[in-house]
Amino acid sequence: MSKILVITGDGGESYEALYAVHRFQEEGWEPVIAAPSRRRLHLVMHDFEPGWDTYIEQPGYGLEADLAFDEVKVEDYAAVLILGGRAPEYLRNNARVLDIVRAFDQQQKWIFAICHGIQVLAAAGLAAGKRVTGYEHVRLEAEQAGGTFVSEQTVRDGRIVTAQTWQSHPSFYREIFAQLAGQAHAARS
Amino acid sequence: MSKILVITGDGGESYEALYAVHRFQEEGWEPVIAAPSRRRLHLVMHDFEPGWDTYIEQPGYGLEADLAFDEVKVEDYAAVLILGGRAPEYLRNNARVLDIVRAFDQQQKWIFAICHGIQVLAAAGLAAGKRVTGYEHVRLEAEQAGGTFVSEQTVRDGRIVTAQTWQSHPSFYREIFAQLAGQAHAARS
Amino acid sequence: MSKILVITGDGGESYEALYAVHRFQEEGWEPVIAAPSRRRLHLVMHDFEPGWDTYIEQPGYGLEADLAFDEVKVEDYAAVLILGGRAPEYLRNNARVLDIVRAFDQQQKWIFAICHGIQVLAAAGLAAGKRVTGYEHVRLEAEQAGGTFVSEQTVRDGRIVTAQTWQSHPSFYREIFAQLAGQAHAARS
Amino acid sequence: MSKILVITGDGGESYEALYAVHRFQEEGWEPVIAAPSRRRLHLVMHDFEPGWDTYIEQPGYGLEADLAFDEVKVEDYAAVLILGGRAPEYLRNNARVLDIVRAFDQQQKWIFAICHGIQVLAAAGLAAGKRVTGYEHVRLEAEQAGGTFVSEQTVRDGRIVTAQTWQSHPSFYREIFAQLAGQAHAARS
Amino acid sequence: MSKILVITGDGGESYEALYAVHRFQEEGWEPVIAAPSRRRLHLVMHDFEPGWDTYIEQPGYGLEADLAFDEVKVEDYAAVLILGGRAPEYLRNNARVLDIVRAFDQQQKWIFAICHGIQVLAAAGLAAGKRVTGYEHVRLEAEQAGGTFVSEQTVRDGRIVTAQTWQSHPSFYREIFAQLAGQAHAARS
Amino acid sequence: MSKILVITGDGGESYEALYAVHRFQEEGWEPVIAAPSRRRLHLVMHDFEPGWDTYIEQPGYGLEADLAFDEVKVEDYAAVLILGGRAPEYLRNNARVLDIVRAFDQQQKWIFAICHGIQVLAAAGLAAGKRVTGYEHVRLEAEQAGGTFVSEQTVRDGRIVTAQTWQSHPSFYREIFAQLAGQAHAARS
Repeated sequence: MSKILVITGDGGESYEALYAVHRFQEEGWEPVIAAPSRRRLHLVMHDFEPGWDTYIEQPGYGLEADLAFDEVKVEDYAAVLILGGRAPEYLRNNARVLDIVRAFDQQQKWIFAICHGIQVLAAAGLAAGKRVTGYEHVRLEAEQAGGTFVSEQTVRDGRIVTAQTWQSHPSFYREIFAQLAGQAHAARS
Repeated sequence: MSKILVITGDGGESYEALYAVHRFQEEGWEPVIAAPSRRRLHLVMHDFEPGWDTYIEQPGYGLEADLAFDEVKVEDYAAVLILGGRAPEYLRNNARVLDIVRAFDQQQKWIFAICHGIQVLAAAGLAAGKRVTGYEHVRLEAEQAGGTFVSEQTVRDGRIVTAQTWQSHPSFYREIFAQLAGQAHAARS
Repeated sequence: MSKILVITGDGGESYEALYAVHRFQEEGWEPVIAAPSRRRLHLVMHDFEPGWDTYIEQPGYGLEADLAFDEVKVEDYAAVLILGGRAPEYLRNNARVLDIVRAFDQQQKWIFAICHGIQVLAAAGLAAGKRVTGYEHVRLEAEQAGGTFVSEQTVRDGRIVTAQTWQSHPSFYREIFAQLAGQAHAARS
Repeated sequence: MSKILVITGDGGESYEALYAVHRFQEEGWEPVIAAPSRRRLHLVMHDFEPGWDTYIEQPGYGLEADLAFDEVKVEDYAAVLILGGRAPEYLRNNARVLDIVRAFDQQQKWIFAICHGIQVLAAAGLAAGKRVTGYEHVRLEAEQAGGTFVSEQTVRDGRIVTAQTWQSHPSFYREIFAQLAGQAHAARS
Repeated sequence: MSKILVITGDGGESYEALYAVHRFQEEGWEPVIAAPSRRRLHLVMHDFEPGWDTYIEQPGYGLEADLAFDEVKVEDYAAVLILGGRAPEYLRNNARVLDIVRAFDQQQKWIFAICHGIQVLAAAGLAAGKRVTGYEHVRLEAEQAGGTFVSEQTVRDGRIVTAQTWQSHPSFYREIFAQLAGQAHAARS
Repeated sequence: MSKILVITGDGGESYEALYAVHRFQEEGWEPVIAAPSRRRLHLVMHDFEPGWDTYIEQPGYGLEADLAFDEVKVEDYAAVLILGGRAPEYLRNNARVLDIVRAFDQQQKWIFAICHGIQVLAAAGLAAGKRVTGYEHVRLEAEQAGGTFVSEQTVRDGRIVTAQTWQSHPSFYREIFAQLAGQAHAARS
């Protein structure tokens, strides 16, 4: 039970992906990257540059997917993390992804989402009646799905922890590990 | 009344933007590009490449905005077109944009939206109770906003015409001009 | 006879290519892309940016060639369109391309060329004695080939219609469809 | 004494930079980015791609420098971290940088270096007689400077902690915080 | 009389430009870069990649123009070199450039051109009646201007030396220096 | 004995590579490119741009390696040239490369190195006791290896000729050919 499932795909945000991998490893957890298929993913860099009214998207760091969604067994994981970037836009229409995320909820496991990751929670029906946050411009998806959007870097409501952007990493992972700490897991190696 | 308002901004889809400008001009209409501010916009290219599970985003053709949203007078235009790309994600949270689009509706003018442009209609409350289409992966926004998402290249419901992607240009503009033809406008020069 | 042959290849201008495909389709014509071989073409974006004394070239939208030049049967088409960008520079030295274009002329079919496309007409000997236009800096090729270069957006001389750049799309396609309209073709679907 | 000085500049590795900022913040430390001058830095992405015998360098995430090296007061910081990427190549020839790093050593403060960061330690004379690590291909600089290069992800010798690449983040930061924990610092906010 | 005028501009080929500067300097000549205006030029890289039917164009090395064309005094130079790349396409329509090149001819000075540089000679009327070469796909311009196109790496006809591409550098510069050697010039420093 | 061995690999500086190939060919020498394996190399462009405190790295011109290092027979060559760019960083840790370079020294053949190429000489122990130069920011490697770093464009000490950057091409190749001229070699073809 020392594994964390990380959901992303082509278009996923590369810094959020690498940060998750290394941060969970530092704490002794084993992150497992799941995507539509097992292969090197085309992650992207979402960043802000002077002179733009929105973020820019450029090629990001590369990452291998460890598992295809079809291979995921929810019982192997203590929690799921849904990364941001542009991947959630299409992952939320992947029935298998929604099933996986709902299974985490039904089994009362932790669910984490950062930035555009909230779009998947909204599509899975898990934002309904919850206080959540995410990238400011996808607030609408959260609200239309019945969630209450809170303008804070990191928000926890029960077993769901959401964060606005990768600028929220400090408070997001502080909260994540505070929650996971209440649970038995493999000691740090 | 021979003007068409075209709404976009940084991150707008460059082919959709240029196509709109030239296509309306060919028919004798004057397209006017409105954006958050008057300056050269950073449009993007959304295209599909082998080996990706979603579209890729790269720098696109450039375009100057003719007007800032604050300068728009709805009474000057016969119709509004909301372009796609990544711009609608943040434009739908711009109150001025929503006011403009709603004013077109209230004044019983034509409203056109392509690709991600449906996100703005949804946010403005104009998809509710309507048959609409758009980029397949933003279907959810249309449905959560009360719209009925139809998987056809181009869909018209009353004065609202929506299209899936720039692959829908042929049927989209055929429909647009069929509708506009029923209306007095400046003769072709 | 409802088909239009579109000639391009690697280095062809991507906006001109996509515009042609969608615009002809809108009017009920079937555009067929011919290139040196059947495969995804490397089209380019030719655009102007502040601070440059000439246009810049960057990667453009992708497009599949439907046919290799060797597979083209001129009798299947009502007209040929030669796209611009950098492709005409080498296509004009492809004997098969010149044969195809001359066959359109001999069979008294329409010949359209935009931007650098005039280079192919010049090389095929079809600009001689004609009023033509094209990208301003390839004027010399047209004149050396015996053509009269006219500084107008779109110029027609008999069955040859030429245009300066993709900024000429409005008048170019207005002229193209005015000419084609005088001819029997498949009704709009 | 809750501040950590982070040394980088144009060409610095962007993931290492962002990771440092957010990871120190998560633990309640305040990272301060120092560079040759105060401005937005041109950080780079160092990553591996199939088909290359070495890493590739591409534009990375942006970051603002908080301080110019001339403004640094060593007494304000508990530790210094020297980031990798291509910046250490020239920073090691910046006398002010070497003075700063040596001052941390003289004041018996912690010194951390990752990847190419070891080049600065070597130039400052701080690798001499120490067990250190770094990017495998700058091993020579460490050895010529009198250090013993150890092929482990993270190596600590006294108050100097070094790591091989950003793949070493888990063990590197585990070691960093283990060391810092023995020291009074501002409580987590 | 130890100076060589080098003509290029935005879109000029960067390797040809740098090679000219350094090669002339090695032999003790002073190359002077002239362009439409004095500023850092946007040179490009023209190269061949697998899978393309023509060369690709990408950003190249940078270079400062030493002089604007208006500042050029032909009597200061022993020879002129016209570089290739995409710049000759528009430079040949610059009357001042043509005047300069013709003045070199009238003053019986050496005229060198590589790759697309032949386009300028053709436009200036200097290819007429001469054996010349250049990039294979601009052969037509040379022939239409009355030149005889020779498929050799480097061709000399009187005081005009032309070369096909930057692959012709070895024979091109061998010929250039063989000709210049018959002339008094500043000794190598 | 009319061959020159040129050592580089992925990350090698593209202008230095092409210049070497063409410059040696001009003088009648046959350059042979050796790299870790025989294939098209990923060379890079190292250049300076306004606003950066160090050079920038971008994709450069392509080049095929003629030989893998394992296929090199030192007796076939009159001299070796070690190119700069980023390749020397890892090539200096390739035992076969060091053996090759040392064999040139033992057989009293010429050894040339430009820019970062000095890193390979330093690693091979050939800078010890010699006056050398190279890219200013790798001065340390030369000095730590026992060399005396001289701030001149080109420096010769016995049979070793070194140069600072590709800006040193004029004096570097002047010196190279002055030295080679004292030696019997194949006449220019």
